[in-house]
Amino acid sequence: MPGNTFGTIFRLTTWGESHGVAIGGVIDGCPADIALCAADIQKDLDRRKPGQSSITSARKEPDTVQILSGVFQGKTTGTPISLIMYNQDQRSKDYEKLVYKYRPGHADEVYDLKYGWRDYRGGGRASARETAIRVAAGAIAKKILPRKTAVIAYTKQIQDLVVTTPKLNQIEQNTVRAADNVIAKKMVALIKTAMRQQDSLGGVIEIVIKHCPIGLGEPVFDKLKADLAKALLSINAVVGFEYGAGFGVAQLYGSEHNKIEVGMYGGISNGKTITMRVAVKPTSSIKIGGRHDPCLLPRAVPICEAMVNVVLADHYLRNATATV
Amino acid sequence: MPGNTFGTIFRLTTWGESHGVAIGGVIDGCPADIALCAADIQKDLDRRKPGQSSITSARKEPDTVQILSGVFQGKTTGTPISLIMYNQDQRSKDYEKLVYKYRPGHADEVYDLKYGWRDYRGGGRASARETAIRVAAGAIAKKILPRKTAVIAYTKQIQDLVVTTPKLNQIEQNTVRAADNVIAKKMVALIKTAMRQQDSLGGVIEIVIKHCPIGLGEPVFDKLKADLAKALLSINAVVGFEYGAGFGVAQLYGSEHNKIEVGMYGGISNGKTITMRVAVKPTSSIKIGGRHDPCLLPRAVPICEAMVNVVLADHYLRNATATV
Amino acid sequence: MPGNTFGTIFRLTTWGESHGVAIGGVIDGCPADIALCAADIQKDLDRRKPGQSSITSARKEPDTVQILSGVFQGKTTGTPISLIMYNQDQRSKDYEKLVYKYRPGHADEVYDLKYGWRDYRGGGRASARETAIRVAAGAIAKKILPRKTAVIAYTKQIQDLVVTTPKLNQIEQNTVRAADNVIAKKMVALIKTAMRQQDSLGGVIEIVIKHCPIGLGEPVFDKLKADLAKALLSINAVVGFEYGAGFGVAQLYGSEHNKIEVGMYGGISNGKTITMRVAVKPTSSIKIGGRHDPCLLPRAVPICEAMVNVVLADHYLRNATATV
Amino acid sequence: MPGNTFGTIFRLTTWGESHGVAIGGVIDGCPADIALCAADIQKDLDRRKPGQSSITSARKEPDTVQILSGVFQGKTTGTPISLIMYNQDQRSKDYEKLVYKYRPGHADEVYDLKYGWRDYRGGGRASARETAIRVAAGAIAKKILPRKTAVIAYTKQIQDLVVTTPKLNQIEQNTVRAADNVIAKKMVALIKTAMRQQDSLGGVIEIVIKHCPIGLGEPVFDKLKADLAKALLSINAVVGFEYGAGFGVAQLYGSEHNKIEVGMYGGISNGKTITMRVAVKPTSSIKIGGRHDPCLLPRAVPICEAMVNVVLADHYLRNATATV
Repeated sequence: MPGNTFGTIFRLTTWGESHGVAIGGVIDGCPADIALCAADIQKDLDRRKPGQSSITSARKEPDTVQILSGVFQGKTTGTPISLIMYNQDQRSKDYEKLVYKYRPGHADEVYDLKYGWRDYRGGGRASARETAIRVAAGAIAKKILPRKTAVIAYTKQIQDLVVTTPKLNQIEQNTVRAADNVIAKKMVALIKTAMRQQDSLGGVIEIVIKHCPIGLGEPVFDKLKADLAKALLSINAVVGFEYGAGFGVAQLYGSEHNKIEVGMYGGISNGKTITMRVAVKPTSSIKIGGRHDPCLLPRAVPICEAMVNVVLADHYLRNATATV
Repeated sequence: MPGNTFGTIFRLTTWGESHGVAIGGVIDGCPADIALCAADIQKDLDRRKPGQSSITSARKEPDTVQILSGVFQGKTTGTPISLIMYNQDQRSKDYEKLVYKYRPGHADEVYDLKYGWRDYRGGGRASARETAIRVAAGAIAKKILPRKTAVIAYTKQIQDLVVTTPKLNQIEQNTVRAADNVIAKKMVALIKTAMRQQDSLGGVIEIVIKHCPIGLGEPVFDKLKADLAKALLSINAVVGFEYGAGFGVAQLYGSEHNKIEVGMYGGISNGKTITMRVAVKPTSSIKIGGRHDPCLLPRAVPICEAMVNVVLADHYLRNATATV
Repeated sequence: MPGNTFGTIFRLTTWGESHGVAIGGVIDGCPADIALCAADIQKDLDRRKPGQSSITSARKEPDTVQILSGVFQGKTTGTPISLIMYNQDQRSKDYEKLVYKYRPGHADEVYDLKYGWRDYRGGGRASARETAIRVAAGAIAKKILPRKTAVIAYTKQIQDLVVTTPKLNQIEQNTVRAADNVIAKKMVALIKTAMRQQDSLGGVIEIVIKHCPIGLGEPVFDKLKADLAKALLSINAVVGFEYGAGFGVAQLYGSEHNKIEVGMYGGISNGKTITMRVAVKPTSSIKIGGRHDPCLLPRAVPICEAMVNVVLADHYLRNATATV
Repeated sequence: MPGNTFGTIFRLTTWGESHGVAIGGVIDGCPADIALCAADIQKDLDRRKPGQSSITSARKEPDTVQILSGVFQGKTTGTPISLIMYNQDQRSKDYEKLVYKYRPGHADEVYDLKYGWRDYRGGGRASARETAIRVAAGAIAKKILPRKTAVIAYTKQIQDLVVTTPKLNQIEQNTVRAADNVIAKKMVALIKTAMRQQDSLGGVIEIVIKHCPIGLGEPVFDKLKADLAKALLSINAVVGFEYGAGFGVAQLYGSEHNKIEVGMYGGISNGKTITMRVAVKPTSSIKIGGRHDPCLLPRAVPICEAMVNVVLADHYLRNATATV
């Protein structure tokens, strides 16, 4: 049974392989009468696209999105919004040698075991290229949420470099998207060293939801925390999720923990700030061909934001019928 | 839009309030012709029920499950399996004072904000009592999986006490369900001290999947890791999830991380052991009435196992149509 | 993949076999703060129960419903509403001879072919007894709809006896539930003759939706007409559905048909009256043991109403997010 | 909540407006390793496209389909199959006068009432143009089913012209797709007369499933008959559905009806031939601008076949887990 759809009322279905003709997605359930144009989406896509700095993949993809349906004269019509991005830089020759060889840490082999047949070029469907459409969907999701609701992600940690006092205005001022320009500079140096060694680095991204609408999350399985965890763990390199004190709770007494504001009770948002962290593993593709990111975090930041916005938009619409 | 159903092919819907007449659930999609009786389920329920040791809640609930449908002469029929557990110890007077008062760290207030109306007795629907039915469902889910597949959870950490060399055979030999009897003894002492201080403790549970069938997980959103994260975060006190190296990846180079076996690639199981950890917060109910667990981990262990078994059974059935 | 759940936001899951301990259902997604008690539901159940007149099955079932969850102090809480009806008259000895014998026109054999294992007592899950819970759900669904919206069904035709000028106030004045007492009398005579011959009769039920809210139905697959058709065809003996001019369109020019008010355009309700008809086959169980209805229509009338109310309630809630 | 997705395991999501850039769809859940190329799909599309004969719309649409993903080197990969058809003949000027005017019998007004904003060109999303993607999906669905399973539809009736002895080999030999060339000739004459009068005609299409796999259909709501009814009623002009004796049951005794083979019991297929009929209303667009079909049946025949194939493929995959 397929798994390429996310969400229940605001529903995103994505499709496409990294070296096929195009990638795309369909958003069904976006309410009507919302102002939307391709430029609204492009801003976020540009934050995710490869080749934007010296520490990201050199693959050349303009990642230009087109809206094929669901928008008429600048406003959504309530019908499915179809998005498409043609693949430009299909340098699939890099991958021809992979027909018979599996890359370490990649989905190559399990796809073969599961499906018996696989598009081996550049990871095919398992490529992180698929996340571009998630970013596009996140840009649309944002428009459904109340104006003051804000989802902000940034690189929190790489090795021992930790942002302890995040300065949100500095996130887009450095290429590693850390919320601290001083620490960011050291992180960039670390990444460049790893690049020279043909190695890669993991890290932690922190995501903050400010002014989350109250009442989001549906007992008992679709708790907001559960759907946020799923959304973020559905991103390729993410291997951990925590919110509030997270794994730090092991060290806390109830009397201490009760004083921490976590933004959700019983899995339902209470309007206070929600702070989450995700662990992002180091790129598996090292010392082999292809053009890869030495550290996934800078480009994962907008992807995390997008998935959180998609979850919030869906739960915002779901909450509309808690009472009538 | 409601959220009391989990799974797609093996679908669990739960219902019931902690101080209502009963709690229960319906499992739809369990294949036919599987041997099943109430005793199969009761074993796991007994591991979750309150009052089983000196470090768990004193609430007296036999938690006896009845199967009302879907089983005929000891075998499943492919029709919905209805489970019911009548509530015995409805000492709801304890909660009468809560009509106008919200307990710290509880869902009380957000339920009121979301629904405008709430069963205030003992947490109502938000009570962890609801997880009893999850444990029952997990017992049924296990029967669908290959015989050698095993899901084993244990208390890994409370404060600085960490089980580093788990001895799986010792888990049920101590009341804290740590995989090490020596450390367990110290944990019990820690919990008893917290009890005396009317305080509570959090910790970390580790969950291991051995002999996971190959090919489970559906790209791109319903990756196995994503559905496991959702399943575990849907449990009341869970505030974090990680697998493999988890948040430890922040310290690792790709060349190091590629050597770690994580059991999934591209979100699809590869047949190797999968190791996960969840963070469990300290009980919020302290220094107030009601009868609560000073540390949730011992009883959360079978709940975590159950949710993982439910995810695996669902994905096992989903994988049946990857090819025809 | 299972099929015992109907609806998307207002979701009904039913369970139970005709000769098991009980039958029941769970409604998830009913908004909070709606007045509800068992008596509200019982009224409709009494219209469906067996043994209510000389032309219905003599099976003795009081069909008393209990609400086990989701309602607190007379109002819904937004959590799942669990309904249960214990089976009283489990005279399953009548069915013991059916272990090895399949009844003509019944699901007995296909259940065996599909599942390999079957509760052979009285049709098990395939029994029309399951529809009692649908009627209960319909009673709850009604409470979500605007007060003036009304769904009214009646026996329209048996053989050549056709109600051409329906008198809605007469429906409950005769045992066959025809909207015309004079024709009803003749229908009853026809049914009694069939009973004496150990035979059975089919017919047509007409269902009218008055003051349907505007805008119900979701393009393009979940059109209101499509979901109504599915809901009604999911009832055991229903073999046909039509609305507006129905199969009569074969004889009409567009210039004629455009003058007919059908209540929906593009599958979306326009607020005008919607008139539907369903074909109900004659009972298959004739000349064999068991206690069966010689004509299913009188008891099918409240079942049809219930399913239509469930569809309307679900679409009413779905429509809440067409715009924000 | 959106409704542009059909099916559960074999899932079709369609998008696009009749006068937008393109229409398309995504099929998620098609098993891997099935031979597929655009030409396989094009054959069926050519049977649906406008302009194929003197009795269909003169709109010029080559309806050329492209496969954008999910197929690699001629075989499906188990990942989403994205289909696109660019709109060629966007003569939307015909529709400019419709900005302020609603066409009788069309969805124009209800779309405005529901969404508050609408693509008014040619019916937008409500246009039957959307069904082209359904036909494409049907061509793929067919490949999942056993080779001998066949779905065959034909024009059965227009006014008093009824095909009583269908000759299946003659269906594609006449432009009206009646299963009888002699009657077809008379039907064509009738349609041409209606065209001259700027009027339109309705009728009945019969659909036969031969060698339907046994066991398809899921109790109790997703009975095969219920999902077939929904699938067919989701087609724009369809206003009625029946199978077996259909509305004829009103005239039958149980002793007579039990002798009729209907191909399903309890909503589950038994392997015998299933015969259904749908009522297709006359085109609403008469005596106005735009280029419309005077009779929808010839082009609706492949659409009905497609939807039935989609239902069968989905249920075929669903049935895979009835037992394990």
